[in-house]
Amino acid sequence: MQDFLKEHVLKFLEGSGQKLGVEALDDSAVVKNIVFTTDSHTPKPLFFPGGDVGSLSVCGTVNDLAVMGAEPIGLGLGMVLEEGFSLSDFERIMKSIKTSSGKANVPIVTGDTKVVERGAVEGIIINTSGIGMRHHLMEGNLETARYVRKLKHDWLTDTNAAAGDVIIVTGTVGDHGLALMSHREGYGFESTLESDVAPLNHLMTKALGARGVVSAKDCTRGGLANALNEWADKSDVGIVVQEDAIPVRKEVRAAADMLGIDPFEVGNEGKAILAVVPGNAEKVLEAVRSVPEGTNAAIIGKVDDGIKKGMVVLETSVGGRRVMESPIGDPVPRIC
Amino acid sequence: MQDFLKEHVLKFLEGSGQKLGVEALDDSAVVKNIVFTTDSHTPKPLFFPGGDVGSLSVCGTVNDLAVMGAEPIGLGLGMVLEEGFSLSDFERIMKSIKTSSGKANVPIVTGDTKVVERGAVEGIIINTSGIGMRHHLMEGNLETARYVRKLKHDWLTDTNAAAGDVIIVTGTVGDHGLALMSHREGYGFESTLESDVAPLNHLMTKALGARGVVSAKDCTRGGLANALNEWADKSDVGIVVQEDAIPVRKEVRAAADMLGIDPFEVGNEGKAILAVVPGNAEKVLEAVRSVPEGTNAAIIGKVDDGIKKGMVVLETSVGGRRVMESPIGDPVPRIC
Repeated sequence: MQDFLKEHVLKFLEGSGQKLGVEALDDSAVVKNIVFTTDSHTPKPLFFPGGDVGSLSVCGTVNDLAVMGAEPIGLGLGMVLEEGFSLSDFERIMKSIKTSSGKANVPIVTGDTKVVERGAVEGIIINTSGIGMRHHLMEGNLETARYVRKLKHDWLTDTNAAAGDVIIVTGTVGDHGLALMSHREGYGFESTLESDVAPLNHLMTKALGARGVVSAKDCTRGGLANALNEWADKSDVGIVVQEDAIPVRKEVRAAADMLGIDPFEVGNEGKAILAVVPGNAEKVLEAVRSVPEGTNAAIIGKVDDGIKKGMVVLETSVGGRRVMESPIGDPVPRIC
Repeated sequence: MQDFLKEHVLKFLEGSGQKLGVEALDDSAVVKNIVFTTDSHTPKPLFFPGGDVGSLSVCGTVNDLAVMGAEPIGLGLGMVLEEGFSLSDFERIMKSIKTSSGKANVPIVTGDTKVVERGAVEGIIINTSGIGMRHHLMEGNLETARYVRKLKHDWLTDTNAAAGDVIIVTGTVGDHGLALMSHREGYGFESTLESDVAPLNHLMTKALGARGVVSAKDCTRGGLANALNEWADKSDVGIVVQEDAIPVRKEVRAAADMLGIDPFEVGNEGKAILAVVPGNAEKVLEAVRSVPEGTNAAIIGKVDDGIKKGMVVLETSVGGRRVMESPIGDPVPRIC
């Protein structure tokens, strides 16, 4: 997908003239200090254990803003639905949008609804865009980081990680992708697996308040492995993580093993990784754990200049080391 | 559609807490002085005389921002395409996006691309969101209007029109809807009809510079008739327009007559109506006409307190008067 974007999309869009424009391929863009993002959602099926296309749409956009260091202030809701789409399903989705928007405390401020004939889309496609302002705790947060070193960027971009930074994951990984896939394929794990879809803006507020966070990224498509590799690549650093330290729910592990899927490679919808300057990691971890979305947060590794730049290394449970690669293609399609 | 939105969408979104939020059903929302809008585009076919889904997406969003009194500063591009979608068609659309974004001088700053299996969407669906800042000429523009009367709102909202205001349309109407429909159905008018899709931000800059514009609205779905009726309804005023004064291209008129379609009821993608305080209309008209998108602009009527509130009256060419109603349903579906 990154290659497709570079070859067939970005070449037409280059020169946005922004410090953090579309070329950065980061979670959100920054335009005149407004943080701005957009995402289309096509999960299949539309309803799954723990969430639906509505909660996914709201949380995905809130999270893309929050992990840049922004306070989300408004969402735009673009819906395309096919004629004959069940009105009760539609209202269930709208209720879910309302609930998630309420949880995040970010209102839907603008919208567009188009109805197309049956078959022109499969059910409903929702696009959510969002805007945010610089978080009021960002200056304090970065001030602490700057005692340690000069930062490349004054937002929590993928390019900001540097040797010594401690990496925190905000909770268990693999939940969303495995829950959705198992539900879709009828593998029978539905009773024990549940999506983690949740807004992360309150968690990010806590993390910023504890100071020293330099990068944050939500682990959506391609999961933890993809997020870490994007950091390694864009920050031009090596990263090492400990397999044993990465929280994975027992049920998720069991389902992943049976299906032959790596839980580190599937998408999450309520999890992020944070890079924190050394010395502040425990404080940030404690802050993150103080909110419900972060109770299972853990320190999983660090940025290490002993590792080749651009590479993510996994120290396995049995004491070995292997490269943690970015998944090729999407191991679980249409989960978001 | 308005009823569907009120009954099944807005009841879940109410209380956005914004002065100009989703409840206002205006062209864009205003959140902390950031103007924000979103639109999904599903034209059928994707390419038509004078434009395509790419130019439509960019111009639609630029125009929604511009007619609020904003300077668009960035666009978000959310694309969902089906597997096997022609790469040359895709690149043709991307080129068109680039061209329109260049014409408008508004960059694409953020984006998202999802590929779904064949049949999950018909070709490609594009959502464009956009943000804008208050136009630097707005204060001067409104200052002039305030010499004449107190304004209900300090953006160019649908609620701002009042008795005496002169109504300008920025060019010929009906072009887009009839071009697209004729092309789709193979009626044979393709050689003479062409969409009017164009960005209106430069035109709006000229209009604001001439001062006294209190409301502006692009005449998309439901065309001129729908736009005027929304004003009459939301501003709680009566409006009278002269049929002879409304510019319609000869070829559009001929096609409309043959197909039994009212050119005032079909969507445009490069036309807006402006309400201007009395005394400044000629100046604004001249300014609008000075840009290529506005050469056919005309004064078409006025807000008239002799007309029942909420009503739009058309003075016909033969000297009669009839109510110009908002089209029921969409006379030409999937034109945008």
